Amino acid sequence: MTSIITLLTDFGGAGVAVSEMKATILGLAPDARMVDITHTIEPQNIRDGARILSRSPFYFPDGTVHIFVVDPGVGTARRPMAARLGAHTFVGPDNGTLTLAMRRAADEGWPMQFFHLDQPRYWRPKISHIFHGRDIFAPVCAHLANGVPLAAFGPAFADPAQLPIVPVIHTPDGLRGEIIFTDHFGNCSSNIRAEDLNGVGDVQVRVRGATINGLSATFGERQPGELIALINHVGELEVAVVNGNAQQRFGVQVGDVVEVVSGLGSG
Amino acid sequence: MTSIITLLTDFGGAGVAVSEMKATILGLAPDARMVDITHTIEPQNIRDGARILSRSPFYFPDGTVHIFVVDPGVGTARRPMAARLGAHTFVGPDNGTLTLAMRRAADEGWPMQFFHLDQPRYWRPKISHIFHGRDIFAPVCAHLANGVPLAAFGPAFADPAQLPIVPVIHTPDGLRGEIIFTDHFGNCSSNIRAEDLNGVGDVQVRVRGATINGLSATFGERQPGELIALINHVGELEVAVVNGNAQQRFGVQVGDVVEVVSGLGSG
Amino acid sequence: MTSIITLLTDFGGAGVAVSEMKATILGLAPDARMVDITHTIEPQNIRDGARILSRSPFYFPDGTVHIFVVDPGVGTARRPMAARLGAHTFVGPDNGTLTLAMRRAADEGWPMQFFHLDQPRYWRPKISHIFHGRDIFAPVCAHLANGVPLAAFGPAFADPAQLPIVPVIHTPDGLRGEIIFTDHFGNCSSNIRAEDLNGVGDVQVRVRGATINGLSATFGERQPGELIALINHVGELEVAVVNGNAQQRFGVQVGDVVEVVSGLGSG
Repeated sequence: MTSIITLLTDFGGAGVAVSEMKATILGLAPDARMVDITHTIEPQNIRDGARILSRSPFYFPDGTVHIFVVDPGVGTARRPMAARLGAHTFVGPDNGTLTLAMRRAADEGWPMQFFHLDQPRYWRPKISHIFHGRDIFAPVCAHLANGVPLAAFGPAFADPAQLPIVPVIHTPDGLRGEIIFTDHFGNCSSNIRAEDLNGVGDVQVRVRGATINGLSATFGERQPGELIALINHVGELEVAVVNGNAQQRFGVQVGDVVEVVSGLGSG
Repeated sequence: MTSIITLLTDFGGAGVAVSEMKATILGLAPDARMVDITHTIEPQNIRDGARILSRSPFYFPDGTVHIFVVDPGVGTARRPMAARLGAHTFVGPDNGTLTLAMRRAADEGWPMQFFHLDQPRYWRPKISHIFHGRDIFAPVCAHLANGVPLAAFGPAFADPAQLPIVPVIHTPDGLRGEIIFTDHFGNCSSNIRAEDLNGVGDVQVRVRGATINGLSATFGERQPGELIALINHVGELEVAVVNGNAQQRFGVQVGDVVEVVSGLGSG
Repeated sequence: MTSIITLLTDFGGAGVAVSEMKATILGLAPDARMVDITHTIEPQNIRDGARILSRSPFYFPDGTVHIFVVDPGVGTARRPMAARLGAHTFVGPDNGTLTLAMRRAADEGWPMQFFHLDQPRYWRPKISHIFHGRDIFAPVCAHLANGVPLAAFGPAFADPAQLPIVPVIHTPDGLRGEIIFTDHFGNCSSNIRAEDLNGVGDVQVRVRGATINGLSATFGERQPGELIALINHVGELEVAVVNGNAQQRFGVQVGDVVEVVSGLGSG
């Protein structure tokens, strides 16, 4: 059976370091299928990595192994770990990058297990203090793909590192959240999720002094240049400009307050 | 038999959305070989996508399935489609991105067929209104790779969307075209093709006030820094600076007029 | 047996030309595993390519074929070549890009062989004068992956092109080298290698007017914002800012002098 291994890092687009991880994997697991999730996580931004790990990995088939390396603490005491969340396995530093994936697993009721990687016989013979991605995480992934059971890699633990999470606030009129990500098209997504809006009815969305009436189902139902709000493909409330760039045009930034006001009758 | 699936999108270099398309494909067609053509088509620029689709896909072996997603109209009435052009199959939005590939197929005399994807049983169970790439096109590609015949995906149609094409003009002295693309090296290619120059003999090429005498066969036959004209690797007339950047140095831009004047004796 | 083929070019992140090389390979060697090393070598910078080729390829399993295309002389008399360095095979232009890989092979005592690719029966039927990557190197790699012996591709030769190498200078107090690379994180690596520092004892490292006392084993043992020196994952002396960008903060550039002074007692 062919195993799938995905890779997510903050190593940038150049790929040289990523290729050394893939080389290591292929040396141990020649038939593994490797797929890049992304390598353009903002350097050392654990929160940016956490956001991606909460969603893209779970589109892969059950049994996929996901390697993640956003690792400002490489070479310090932070644990290297392997984590099982439901049918998916994650390998990387225990530094909070899995926070949102764990929250998702908890929401879904998936079992979770965490193992401290402390068995050098599954690593490269020589470990760089600054490149655990190639020297520890990649060979561990390859051995996992080859069928070595998780418990062989080290002792279980129960207290994985977690990031503080910015909550969505319920206000008298609706909800208040914030912009947490801007993409390649200049679309700006928030921490408010589709399920937060259940039962809220018709809404106004306010960001950067602009007011948007109602949610759009698609980009095509409004005019080019119009600022719209919609639920994006991962279930987040997003603001966007039809055929345009909301980030540039309205100056929307990560951290900006987003207010959702329900009921439009108060004038 | 292993199937090959290529991917072309305007999703940018980050790759997260692309990885969700690949995840979907691997879930349905675990042995498919996936190769990225590019994901840095200018956002929502159908013409830029059309230019690439007219050439790179046809270097792949017969039977390859090509998925393309440059899709400003996602979620509107534009048809999702599968198209067969000769021995290659294309899956994406019916919005003109295939215009130049169809022109090539017509030039080559290849048979063409078009099918409207309207059978949800071949899609992901839940469709995002803004990400048909992952939810419709990727699973259709996987089912095609698995051998499902094209006609199963929906009814044939005969009027695919087409972009207007900028023609090359024949002038008393030669030809007039325009710059249609600038690449990573600053080389600037035009809509004038090698075959347009058949029988034209010695030429001058004029762009942005500069005059180039004759065509070069290679970069190496002129001096570093010299502005040259040559036929590029896809058969287009291109202007370039040897070991330099024509776009930056001469300010050449997409849309600039390119004149080819034959016979040098009239001066 | 599945063959592995890696690809390194200066074609940029867009990937269209790279996809045409992969298409050519898959047409001839459908089972080859292809892995990108990088495509963001600085355009036409043979030295940048040489640096990468001296290290990343050798993490791949024995028997891997590496294609490299940093080729400012494409279409001129420079030889297309295949080179065997120990258990690895390289295919690309004979223009010095292999200089540092050859130096490594010499240091390691690996046998080396060089062959001039002059047998068009192993190429694409039609050769672009400006895209040997697709038309010569890619099909040769595929035939190598299929088991064609090296000597079939053309005559052996013994004088591969080599770049001049910037030496590390021994000074009365220690060593003097220079910055040769800056990465995505703004870390700046030098031509001074770990083995050059053997027996030097406690050191000061000086660059751009800043003085760094001692080498760090990891980023985590110093404070955020501090300028540190360390041996990087490929064994080079590197300067970096903890959780920051040394290139931006201190203006460190390729070519800057790096001085290592041993013994700290003279102050």
